[in-house]
Amino acid sequence: MLRVGYPATLAAELLRDFPPEVELIPLPNDLDHDIEIDVWIPDPYPKRAICLWPRLRGVRLILSLMAGTEWIPGVAGPGVTICNAQGAHSISTAEWTLSAILATLKYFPLYLNVQRSGVWKRRFEADTHYARITGDARPHYPPIMLEELTGKSVLLVGYGSIGKEIERMLAPFHVELERVARSARANPLVHAVSELDNLLPHADVVILILPSTAESYHLIGRRQFALMRQGALLVNAARGPIVDTDALVDALNAGHIRAALDVTDPEPLPEGYPLWNCPNLLLTPHVAGSSPQFAPRSLKTAADELRRYINGEPLRNVVQAAV
Amino acid sequence: MLRVGYPATLAAELLRDFPPEVELIPLPNDLDHDIEIDVWIPDPYPKRAICLWPRLRGVRLILSLMAGTEWIPGVAGPGVTICNAQGAHSISTAEWTLSAILATLKYFPLYLNVQRSGVWKRRFEADTHYARITGDARPHYPPIMLEELTGKSVLLVGYGSIGKEIERMLAPFHVELERVARSARANPLVHAVSELDNLLPHADVVILILPSTAESYHLIGRRQFALMRQGALLVNAARGPIVDTDALVDALNAGHIRAALDVTDPEPLPEGYPLWNCPNLLLTPHVAGSSPQFAPRSLKTAADELRRYINGEPLRNVVQAAV
Repeated sequence: MLRVGYPATLAAELLRDFPPEVELIPLPNDLDHDIEIDVWIPDPYPKRAICLWPRLRGVRLILSLMAGTEWIPGVAGPGVTICNAQGAHSISTAEWTLSAILATLKYFPLYLNVQRSGVWKRRFEADTHYARITGDARPHYPPIMLEELTGKSVLLVGYGSIGKEIERMLAPFHVELERVARSARANPLVHAVSELDNLLPHADVVILILPSTAESYHLIGRRQFALMRQGALLVNAARGPIVDTDALVDALNAGHIRAALDVTDPEPLPEGYPLWNCPNLLLTPHVAGSSPQFAPRSLKTAADELRRYINGEPLRNVVQAAV
Repeated sequence: MLRVGYPATLAAELLRDFPPEVELIPLPNDLDHDIEIDVWIPDPYPKRAICLWPRLRGVRLILSLMAGTEWIPGVAGPGVTICNAQGAHSISTAEWTLSAILATLKYFPLYLNVQRSGVWKRRFEADTHYARITGDARPHYPPIMLEELTGKSVLLVGYGSIGKEIERMLAPFHVELERVARSARANPLVHAVSELDNLLPHADVVILILPSTAESYHLIGRRQFALMRQGALLVNAARGPIVDTDALVDALNAGHIRAALDVTDPEPLPEGYPLWNCPNLLLTPHVAGSSPQFAPRSLKTAADELRRYINGEPLRNVVQAAV
């Protein structure tokens, strides 16, 4: 019987749909002895999972509940097959991306300050904000209180399952969309990442939703920020190291761009780190995927993968094949 | 020649597309003598427009730049034709509506507090917030950090041009949509407003986007709040008086519902008014329509209406015909 270890903290009802051919073994975070398992479902928090790894023996297959698995190969080595939960976080992460874009363009952080102050006429600060961030210093009448997403230029960097979901949610806004991925494709047109610097100057919104790899490390750095439009919005729903944090802090503090981040580098962002206090920034602490639907969807993905494994069928979401 | 009075504060370039058969007469806010005009384009701010009215002579047609014209008949009487700028604010107001729903479901006000505090681990307050607002007190692992719009039940109250635009923007989220308007219709199914109380208990999100009239006054009051689900979200992108503010304050303070408002009653909301400090509330000070595209779009609508008036064609957006 296939032995499947999973985080003991998961509610048992989430494992109801697992195939009957497996023995389910709850793994407490403070496991104090070695344990033999065939398949490992790591805790969603890498730190906890990494602490557990030295106790595990015989693992051949790792089924991650997350989309990003960049920490696993370094810990588990090349001898195990690693699958992610592709698709399970697409809806939630794509929704966060659209929400972060809209909240920024509607100046909600500014209006929350107005709300807190309880002074209605402070709404005219929005017009000043618009003038400053766009560089359009002409007087406006009536005053400009927010921006529209409709018709803006959007550069989507990464075109996997989450990127496609973001594109679907952007459709009603008739944006001018350009897509970038590792390699160029047609139907729909996807540019190679080597084209990035040529595309950046034309984008109002730049969305990062690609894996964290050696190639994507610091993909957005000083040169890329300099190429971006005044007031352009950088959205990172992927992984922190894709952006050079020092360059981002400088670009924000200079008032050149806006940013919405669900991920940072370093992460967790330490107290007192300069990024926390940058202007024109919406920062959420790596929460985009964590909806009430997260656990049921990602465990359903894991159960499906297990069934294929038991039946000797090819796995769907392999990010590393065992060597 | 048709004499058209317009707010002197509008940039002249916005009037470029007006028909050549009209004489354009800029009206300063502090006009100190009576003036003869045929058509009046009032200032977008009713207060300013109302002060100007006693100086105007001969007005037969009023072309409002706004969607809501509820203040005009009382000021100008039944002898003038009144048109609104239907459609000109649809995109911006619909975008605000979607943004306000998403910002609430993604707990952005909470995360802006976390960001301001600079303490990453305060993100776990989101799980407590979820438990409190939904009444789901079971422990969650992994913790729940935000909600999804996808699959939620949405009740759209009002099905004019802005309501239809909101429906279009909701499409990617596969919501269970019910529509309500003054009178029932088919294809698509629209319920009569008399059905409202039967529909309220089934909605996660209730969107108000209907005109402010005697019939819609306090459409949402104590009885309606009591019918709403625990944690349901009321969105008012229409007009303040459609909601009974005292009942809203009580429903919010009781932790029973959430709200996102762009309009209030009274408006402007006075300093110290209890609504400012209610929990689970996103309040913007009547800004939803005020994008950079507001003035060009609404003046294009006015120019089109003027052309029809000159050519003796029926006007498109009549909200009051002169008697």
